[in-house]
Amino acid sequence: MKEKIAIAVHGGAGTILKSSMTLEKEQLYKAGLEEALKLGYQILDKGGSSLDAVTTAVSALENNPLFNAGRGSVFTHDGTHEMDAAIMRGDTLEAGAVAGVSGIKNPVVLARTVMEQSEHVLLGGNEAVRFAFDQGVDLMEPEYFHTEFRHKQWQDALAEGKVQLDHSDKKFGTVGAVARDRNGSLVAATSTGGMTNKRWGRIGDSPLIGCGTYANDKTCAVSCTGHGEFFIRAVVAYDLSCLIEYKGMSLQEACDFLVMDKLQKFGGEGGLIALDKHGNVVLSFNSEGMYRGQYVEGSNLTTAIYRS
Amino acid sequence: MKEKIAIAVHGGAGTILKSSMTLEKEQLYKAGLEEALKLGYQILDKGGSSLDAVTTAVSALENNPLFNAGRGSVFTHDGTHEMDAAIMRGDTLEAGAVAGVSGIKNPVVLARTVMEQSEHVLLGGNEAVRFAFDQGVDLMEPEYFHTEFRHKQWQDALAEGKVQLDHSDKKFGTVGAVARDRNGSLVAATSTGGMTNKRWGRIGDSPLIGCGTYANDKTCAVSCTGHGEFFIRAVVAYDLSCLIEYKGMSLQEACDFLVMDKLQKFGGEGGLIALDKHGNVVLSFNSEGMYRGQYVEGSNLTTAIYRS
Repeated sequence: MKEKIAIAVHGGAGTILKSSMTLEKEQLYKAGLEEALKLGYQILDKGGSSLDAVTTAVSALENNPLFNAGRGSVFTHDGTHEMDAAIMRGDTLEAGAVAGVSGIKNPVVLARTVMEQSEHVLLGGNEAVRFAFDQGVDLMEPEYFHTEFRHKQWQDALAEGKVQLDHSDKKFGTVGAVARDRNGSLVAATSTGGMTNKRWGRIGDSPLIGCGTYANDKTCAVSCTGHGEFFIRAVVAYDLSCLIEYKGMSLQEACDFLVMDKLQKFGGEGGLIALDKHGNVVLSFNSEGMYRGQYVEGSNLTTAIYRS
Repeated sequence: MKEKIAIAVHGGAGTILKSSMTLEKEQLYKAGLEEALKLGYQILDKGGSSLDAVTTAVSALENNPLFNAGRGSVFTHDGTHEMDAAIMRGDTLEAGAVAGVSGIKNPVVLARTVMEQSEHVLLGGNEAVRFAFDQGVDLMEPEYFHTEFRHKQWQDALAEGKVQLDHSDKKFGTVGAVARDRNGSLVAATSTGGMTNKRWGRIGDSPLIGCGTYANDKTCAVSCTGHGEFFIRAVVAYDLSCLIEYKGMSLQEACDFLVMDKLQKFGGEGGLIALDKHGNVVLSFNSEGMYRGQYVEGSNLTTAIYRS
């Protein structure tokens, strides 16, 4: 029997209010999510791996300047772009991640290269960029990452003297994808440009295995987006897996408990996308909105932004 | 009723063979562990916090050139010293960590400063050192970290062209401590100089909350030492907590299963020190040896190196 294929993506969560959106902007975001889902689904549909589907979907979101990852990454305090990304495969529990890298076109590709071409899981900073160079991973000049929108956010944040999560709305800019292929293998990946005006080499949950990203064929694949510090302290991604494996919860029960109850009480605003070994997809968040979408075999592709 | 106070420390695990040790070296290692235990225990005994006890014990190990952390940190490929550390308190689930920092006398103190003086959990690289400077955390010149022993290891590794875990033995150089104070609060901390001849800004499990370090008053405090990449992929520290919280295992059962069965099968060589909410201490490892010690109220201080 062929396993059911499925893919889900997110483009960040937070205070995304309908009142501060235009119909045109909404459609641009949805088109970006849809493109990523379709590119990933096509790969799965042709019998490709969840690893390739997730890499391609996250790369598409990284290439879209609307989302805070890759090209659309926010500015740091020093006016640079420092990006984080992670990827994990559920069949072998192999993982790769990078933290605080600049000039990388697709940080998710670099994370995958760390997984496949090094004996390490996590590389950080300029040295990780040297690894990217050695491996022939695509590098881009700073101008590539310069978008007027993000530049203005940074200038505003500098003027106000504060670190901002994404922009003037309280928004957690991250992208991510989870997928299941015809072999039933699960993969998760997350990528982010971090916080506007961030200093001191702050690293959030996105590149941290078990916090922002986790995959295990026995339980689930999950990519988080939210207030990173809370997601680290709550080890959210692996907690979801443990609730399924050790407590016997279904994916839906585990997400309801973790996101809507435990994280809510803890102050951990945000959400996650997850997919279990049966191909069930759950997109869960306790914030006002989350850019999200799913494409599951036998169902229509759907995208959404606000609470339903 | 006064809660039972307890502290445990480790100084790394791996292939530590009696045949390659001298009695004098053994005694030096044991004296280092004993000093850290006594300093931490004194604080607990006077009614001090597990946070202060753990910070003091880990700082003592960092100051001892025998251990691969702080002063005794190994050399990177470029001849520098890049250190990682993390600390977490079990009462509030607050955490602080640093990755890839150079010139910091006591990385555990910097990790604590991140926890207490920033809104972040994890800071990395040169920017984290700038934070240390701003906060007045003790910095040292490179010479402070230059020990002949480590320098020779690095030269040997360069000559052989390989990354080494600690030195010519397969040893995972890390230090850590867990403690429980009179309020029953648990704290865990880990600190390391990483791998000899490491490149590309490799970050191991030590500074990663949930992987190498975790504390939760409801379950346990744990500090790991081992082949970092496996400990990250297995999210070891938080797994121990979940086995207790979700599976209802005792600390001993959870350590036996996790270290001696699950990690062993996974290829994750190393060990951990852990302490539960009742003040039970378990020092567990699947490698040849682990520098370790414990001092629990009502029992004698003990230190050990090899399998018993």
